Amino acid sequence: MPYSAPLEAIKNALKFNADIDAAGATGAFENYDSDLIAPVLEEANKLASGILSPLNPTGHQNGASLKDGVVTSAPGFADAYKTFAEGGWIGLPFPEEFGGQALPKSLAIAVMEMIQGANPAFGLNPMLTFGSIEALLVKGTDEQKSTYLEKLISGEWTGAMNLTEASAGSDVGALKSKAIPNDDGSFSITGQKIFITWGEHDVTDNIIQLVLARTPDSPEGSRGISLFLVPKFFVNDDGSLGDRNTYQCIGLEEKIGIHASPTCVMEYNGAKGWLIGEENKGLAAMFIMMNAARLQVGLQGVAVCESAMQAANAYARDRKQGSAPGVQGDAAIIHHPDIKRTLVSMAATTQAARAIVYAAAGASDLAEHSTDDASKAKFKQREDLLVPIAKAWATDRGCEMANQAVQVYGGMGFMNETDAAQIMLDARINPIYEGTNGIQAMDLVGRKLASDKGAGMTAMIAEIRKTIADASTTGNGHLAIVANRLYTAAGALEEATEWMLTNMASNRSTALAGATAYLRLAGDVIGGHLLAQAAIGSIEADDSFKEKAVILARIFADETLTQAQGRMEAVSAPANLVEDAMTTLFEAIEA
Amino acid sequence: MPYSAPLEAIKNALKFNADIDAAGATGAFENYDSDLIAPVLEEANKLASGILSPLNPTGHQNGASLKDGVVTSAPGFADAYKTFAEGGWIGLPFPEEFGGQALPKSLAIAVMEMIQGANPAFGLNPMLTFGSIEALLVKGTDEQKSTYLEKLISGEWTGAMNLTEASAGSDVGALKSKAIPNDDGSFSITGQKIFITWGEHDVTDNIIQLVLARTPDSPEGSRGISLFLVPKFFVNDDGSLGDRNTYQCIGLEEKIGIHASPTCVMEYNGAKGWLIGEENKGLAAMFIMMNAARLQVGLQGVAVCESAMQAANAYARDRKQGSAPGVQGDAAIIHHPDIKRTLVSMAATTQAARAIVYAAAGASDLAEHSTDDASKAKFKQREDLLVPIAKAWATDRGCEMANQAVQVYGGMGFMNETDAAQIMLDARINPIYEGTNGIQAMDLVGRKLASDKGAGMTAMIAEIRKTIADASTTGNGHLAIVANRLYTAAGALEEATEWMLTNMASNRSTALAGATAYLRLAGDVIGGHLLAQAAIGSIEADDSFKEKAVILARIFADETLTQAQGRMEAVSAPANLVEDAMTTLFEAIEA
Repeated sequence: MPYSAPLEAIKNALKFNADIDAAGATGAFENYDSDLIAPVLEEANKLASGILSPLNPTGHQNGASLKDGVVTSAPGFADAYKTFAEGGWIGLPFPEEFGGQALPKSLAIAVMEMIQGANPAFGLNPMLTFGSIEALLVKGTDEQKSTYLEKLISGEWTGAMNLTEASAGSDVGALKSKAIPNDDGSFSITGQKIFITWGEHDVTDNIIQLVLARTPDSPEGSRGISLFLVPKFFVNDDGSLGDRNTYQCIGLEEKIGIHASPTCVMEYNGAKGWLIGEENKGLAAMFIMMNAARLQVGLQGVAVCESAMQAANAYARDRKQGSAPGVQGDAAIIHHPDIKRTLVSMAATTQAARAIVYAAAGASDLAEHSTDDASKAKFKQREDLLVPIAKAWATDRGCEMANQAVQVYGGMGFMNETDAAQIMLDARINPIYEGTNGIQAMDLVGRKLASDKGAGMTAMIAEIRKTIADASTTGNGHLAIVANRLYTAAGALEEATEWMLTNMASNRSTALAGATAYLRLAGDVIGGHLLAQAAIGSIEADDSFKEKAVILARIFADETLTQAQGRMEAVSAPANLVEDAMTTLFEAIEA
Repeated sequence: MPYSAPLEAIKNALKFNADIDAAGATGAFENYDSDLIAPVLEEANKLASGILSPLNPTGHQNGASLKDGVVTSAPGFADAYKTFAEGGWIGLPFPEEFGGQALPKSLAIAVMEMIQGANPAFGLNPMLTFGSIEALLVKGTDEQKSTYLEKLISGEWTGAMNLTEASAGSDVGALKSKAIPNDDGSFSITGQKIFITWGEHDVTDNIIQLVLARTPDSPEGSRGISLFLVPKFFVNDDGSLGDRNTYQCIGLEEKIGIHASPTCVMEYNGAKGWLIGEENKGLAAMFIMMNAARLQVGLQGVAVCESAMQAANAYARDRKQGSAPGVQGDAAIIHHPDIKRTLVSMAATTQAARAIVYAAAGASDLAEHSTDDASKAKFKQREDLLVPIAKAWATDRGCEMANQAVQVYGGMGFMNETDAAQIMLDARINPIYEGTNGIQAMDLVGRKLASDKGAGMTAMIAEIRKTIADASTTGNGHLAIVANRLYTAAGALEEATEWMLTNMASNRSTALAGATAYLRLAGDVIGGHLLAQAAIGSIEADDSFKEKAVILARIFADETLTQAQGRMEAVSAPANLVEDAMTTLFEAIEA
């Protein structure tokens, strides 16, 4: 099924959830004009639907391959990457100084949604490059910026993130790779990195590895890791490429999905690299990349929801099977009420996931570019709160939607060559990488909730209460019901938040046993709020999407906000029992 | 991770949910003695854990292969099948007259849970054989029975079910295969069948195909299909094997899982077959196989829950990553409260799924063998109600549990060779085959609920109310809370049932749009009821499993029964809106 971007739904989320015009109004984006949104999105959709989508099944069937250290990308991927780079798509949100277009990050997120929806294995390559660019922008020296940034931003080279080692995954502080200083100020990096996405490939002439390693006598744990820039080919003073660096891709993982994205085992044998930022401060640099990447992975979740819905919709119209009321002869399965319900529910969930991720991106723009410090702080708090929810909630929903698409396909959904199967297999990594969703939940209740005594969530709930009031005054019957459901749901979120704050202070283990359930509840309620917010805004602006926005908010409220009260109980009640139940049901845990 | 059957949990469900002793007390099972349960289960576990489990990853990596019409099974499978057959396991629930052991079906279900848990690709072969045996027992002529049944029951031959064609899946009545009568009373069968599980293989000398086809001038649709017995090799009068029949396996599907189970495209070229039962009554015979198979697939869901939980538990104890409170140095991830919560929740869901499937099997025994007609009718009603719930609810939970196991594995869960990945991939077919879960939901609200005006469900709710009363009188604190939650949940199920009955009468499309959500709610509430029932029974009998039974019921009540009220609202509210939402959100549907 060819992917085609849902331009109207994306524009609506950009306008009413990301508040892209507020970013434009800060004056920080000289090139931004709200009239630019439509042509940019249409152009990106041509690339996504015309070039990347047709390569997606090819990539699934063929995958990337490794021979003698050389990774050959799936057929067509190298050419597609060149087209993508030449379109200037990577530079969208980056400074003009380095060749970027200095547009809001939320617009870049909208473009990347299309790339990820059309071809997620392809999309991982620019996604990792973004992380490298962000890290260099913040932490790089002027020389590093002038040597590497322009080529990364133009798409001429790509970047890869080398964090994980065999015994250092979620616990990155356990890594063992070494960086020995050379006389010329560079370092010699030695060690093995695993799960390195697009760590080696043939789609660009050079690859810039960002590698975490330890310098001699560095402190133990995460306070002793430093970030290094390790190019595949050294760059001569005139910008031309010199010798090959001494590292190799020694293996590709056999994964269940994203076959066209090479997942590399990288062996660094005294490879020459340069420190990015300060020694032993690699973790901070890593979190810059990581934060950007977490939002991008949440976006992959949105893209999965959308492509799963499109596949299910197209297949349900195509597949004839049996009779249906009011249809002569064989009926397409879309005539069955159960299938309609599935599609309608998928549409609401997809837009809720999009709303959350776009709201986080919009908050990020305003956190960086608001004109006063109070606003900056407010939106930073918002961004911090939303990023783990965006990552975990949207990727979990992505897997669920993919699962539903497979179900609509029936027996064909279990066949390896179908779109539905590929979407499901590709999607399954999203809740795992860039910090498992369990880690996102710990981040939400630990770093984001407990550290500011719930101020960010309190502000969010206040905003939800404003939405409830606004919804009631629109005079729209659907939104009146949404307001009622949101009222109960906000109360549930508030109660769960209080429980969580109390227990994080007094009984941390119990609190953490409720973290995943709490994140789910928070995503449900915030998703319902954002859909209502978009519906209200669309009515006020007489937006062409307004009928859709209203029904999406209503369906989501009926399907999901109705569950909030029950979910609130399921945050705390089982959490209180987990230790006892573990002891009763399972063998003793060895220390 | 080696699979090992949870003998105590299985025995508890057999005793208190399947009520196996009540089946024994009917006198219909001469060989049955409750002291037999433990040694039978232990012996079956030796086979499952010792022989079938080690072959499971091998089967995943190698799969079955086809060359020149010959299907070669995965390494070790043929020998394992011989061991399995020699153990007499297939004959457990079948009449002694044909070499069976005439034991309750619920005991056979317990044994098959272990086979499916250890190696689902292997387990599909006997599962399909069961269906063939059931059809022959009910519909076969004496000659057919004497020629084929003993060999099927001994496991010397296997049976396969040939229903699906390219345009006749869920709508089996659309099938086009032809059966032309020969002068000798046999028929010549011609047509192509797809998705035929273990349709061709090398693990036994003969295969008995049960094939649906149309005789000349048969009525259109499902009223014109007949069932035929088509052996791979003809059977001589002395029981020896004669010529090869004229059909071929012409292809194997490339699936995402159960690679060691050959899924065959079968081409019948005038193959010789014999009618089973009456002409044009094939659908009735098919439903005998189907009903047996649906419960077996629900059982696969249980087996997936169990093997996913075992894999997650073992991996969480083995995998060291980062620190945890109270642990020196690197801690196994099982120390994290989020992982403990996952495991505890998986345990409760697994036992609930087991309870539902075993209760259906127990009802089936009593429906067939109760000593009075009223009891027979009562348990038949119970069985009919529970089968679609067992099939759909348990397989959906299986996929969820498998997904959670992958999540516990983290990045390793996305690697093709890990147990967690295999469990998830293998499990994904369960909600699809033998009638998709959407079809189970339509069966529940259409055939099972509306046809008897809800009498079966009303009887079930009355039983739930009895459990609530019993739970309150045990004096157990956990069960008092369970009783409260079950009370609310039963009310929700009652309300949803009323809505469903009203709408099935007046507004069928709306009702059907709520069918899947209704089945989910019914499974949740009945699962909670059955866990409470087992806990109460275990306390009364001072069963060694009683502490576990109580905490499982409590955890399930906290996690799942708390959701019932919200789920009830989500049955009806979105269903009422589906048509409007479909029109607003999606392109028009072509007639």
